[in-house]
Amino acid sequence: MDLKKISNLLAEIRSRKPLVHHITNYVTVNDCANIVLAIGGSPVMADDRNEVEEMVALASALVINIGTLNADTCAAMLLAGKKANALGLPVIFDPVGAGATRLRTQTAQDILQQVKIAVIRGNLSEIKVLAGLSAVTRGVDATDDDIDAGRTVSRRLAEQHRCTVAVTGAVDVISDADRTVYVENGHPFLTGITGTGCMATSLIGVYSAVTADPLLAAAAGLVTMGLAGERAYQALGEKDGIGMFRLRLFDCIRQFNPEDLWQGARLRYE
Amino acid sequence: MDLKKISNLLAEIRSRKPLVHHITNYVTVNDCANIVLAIGGSPVMADDRNEVEEMVALASALVINIGTLNADTCAAMLLAGKKANALGLPVIFDPVGAGATRLRTQTAQDILQQVKIAVIRGNLSEIKVLAGLSAVTRGVDATDDDIDAGRTVSRRLAEQHRCTVAVTGAVDVISDADRTVYVENGHPFLTGITGTGCMATSLIGVYSAVTADPLLAAAAGLVTMGLAGERAYQALGEKDGIGMFRLRLFDCIRQFNPEDLWQGARLRYE
Amino acid sequence: MDLKKISNLLAEIRSRKPLVHHITNYVTVNDCANIVLAIGGSPVMADDRNEVEEMVALASALVINIGTLNADTCAAMLLAGKKANALGLPVIFDPVGAGATRLRTQTAQDILQQVKIAVIRGNLSEIKVLAGLSAVTRGVDATDDDIDAGRTVSRRLAEQHRCTVAVTGAVDVISDADRTVYVENGHPFLTGITGTGCMATSLIGVYSAVTADPLLAAAAGLVTMGLAGERAYQALGEKDGIGMFRLRLFDCIRQFNPEDLWQGARLRYE
Repeated sequence: MDLKKISNLLAEIRSRKPLVHHITNYVTVNDCANIVLAIGGSPVMADDRNEVEEMVALASALVINIGTLNADTCAAMLLAGKKANALGLPVIFDPVGAGATRLRTQTAQDILQQVKIAVIRGNLSEIKVLAGLSAVTRGVDATDDDIDAGRTVSRRLAEQHRCTVAVTGAVDVISDADRTVYVENGHPFLTGITGTGCMATSLIGVYSAVTADPLLAAAAGLVTMGLAGERAYQALGEKDGIGMFRLRLFDCIRQFNPEDLWQGARLRYE
Repeated sequence: MDLKKISNLLAEIRSRKPLVHHITNYVTVNDCANIVLAIGGSPVMADDRNEVEEMVALASALVINIGTLNADTCAAMLLAGKKANALGLPVIFDPVGAGATRLRTQTAQDILQQVKIAVIRGNLSEIKVLAGLSAVTRGVDATDDDIDAGRTVSRRLAEQHRCTVAVTGAVDVISDADRTVYVENGHPFLTGITGTGCMATSLIGVYSAVTADPLLAAAAGLVTMGLAGERAYQALGEKDGIGMFRLRLFDCIRQFNPEDLWQGARLRYE
Repeated sequence: MDLKKISNLLAEIRSRKPLVHHITNYVTVNDCANIVLAIGGSPVMADDRNEVEEMVALASALVINIGTLNADTCAAMLLAGKKANALGLPVIFDPVGAGATRLRTQTAQDILQQVKIAVIRGNLSEIKVLAGLSAVTRGVDATDDDIDAGRTVSRRLAEQHRCTVAVTGAVDVISDADRTVYVENGHPFLTGITGTGCMATSLIGVYSAVTADPLLAAAAGLVTMGLAGERAYQALGEKDGIGMFRLRLFDCIRQFNPEDLWQGARLRYE
């Protein structure tokens, strides 16, 4: 695997402006749309079961995020996911809050059983739950930064579902069972605002639209988000805080060029 | 038509603070509420069928936006639209993604048949679809900046539904079948964030509350959005990008006074 | 009552990071999540009736906000509220738009009858309606800054439901029937953006998680919001406006320390 290809992916996104269909939550949906635009993609959000199959057919990737799931949107997620599979489009899955309630855990399991997923991105407790390991989940915001645990559990879930699994934390761990990549980019301020997990998933969705290697797409998405966090923090002035940091994320991601991305990437590969 | 009257409209908004009822999408709804406040109006968002008729009766205009439509909200849109018609209130319609899915196209047609619309605002492909012309729609984000096509299709749809039609693009074209206005204000950064189309529609909604001439309301709304884009871009500092641009839109719109609006307007009329 | 304890509450929040479950509206939900993070809490938003009882059981407080209510979310609010009562968790209620439509008034009354509320926060017209007094409600944005009326009506509603009632306006009035507190912090710009009422309610939710005295929690929440408005305004540069003001609210709230809060508080007590 040549990780330097993440630069090429960014150039591809800028040239092809892939449409990424989201069925996502209403908390962070605006941030997800803006981050997709900032990296160079085109977002569309649609969640009615009577249109999601047609909408995903226009897209180059599908992002499913269960952050504010309900019976209607869960049905739409399954329909859209199956259609994406039939069309050969990558499906990216964010199991927000899996483990916190039976509805979330069961919905996530249903999606994994009925839809072929390209990349699952979650925090350690969410991924543990999906891999059948016990985890203490506290709402949707739980984190556990144990890299070894991330490696073990991402490999396990990747094997179970023959997909790529990204466990995000202080160091992100990505595995497709054969290969494991570590992303060390990031900044603690990223945990101080809502939506950075969802936005990372959306970025992986955009990258997935321009490569057949989900592991590379996941690495590129997480480098982009983490590096944006670093640059956004560096750009803060004396009186700036978390609100300005959030704004600078969008400034930075739009300004990234392929060289920036590779030069700033802090990646390890095993 | 005296286009200079758009200055008077802004003064009227500031004096009357009209309440504008929205049934809109959950992606950009916060931006729409804030843009209505910034121009001097008062936003209310309510979409349950058991309350929309009462809510619209308190308002001075109704904005219908199908960006994230579903069966429940579509029913509410029709109920609210009919009530607004019965009360003589202007209804502004944003057919987001018409042409992308049958649900969107059919819903838009149902609304146009059952509700008397004052102003329709969309991009060229959306308006083409509603006018019965073939269009290539790619999600909700398609654009086609052909001014001649905009003139032809806006006039045609305006004739079909005896309303005002605004086709937004690099140059906006507004027609009520008899008169055509071109708005040349704007900046490419406006396409780099989500919600600028929805916000333009909301601004038209506020202006519609203070004039009986929908063409004038549409021109005023699009000048406001376009000029805000220009001023927001001018206000950017060296390290500012698309995130700061978005913030400055709200700064600028609140700071506009009636003279600014007219002096900055780049309008043509035929 | 020792109002200086609000400093201790902020220190407690920073130390315990309480999880606050929201069933709220889709207009301002992102702002509510970010304000909870900024003060030091952890937000979770979930509104499906099949999971809200489990979710609230993980939380330290529940915020119910009817800003964009519908039949599904109203059912979830009642379920979650009753579960919170059973678990002894504080429930904070924001009756957005009560009085504007029968659905909102009736839903608010249902919640007050079926759920034991710790703190109700609304504007004067909303609180008047809930107290059974006539009020002119204009959408969700009505304000009436009569302090005497606020005192009378907050005491009355507090007596009726044996809870704490906060009426927000130019001066906020908080009563638990026995005690009345006035919060004079604030800035007119807070009425120029959407969501400041909702965010104030969310802040009260976070404070409620760390004290058994709802009046103190309400005072702390409203001091925090009002003082953030003052500091955000002070932080504006020459070309900054309402957009930058909104951003600075988050900067300021995250930067508050317990001493700031008490030194900046403008509280009266009777």
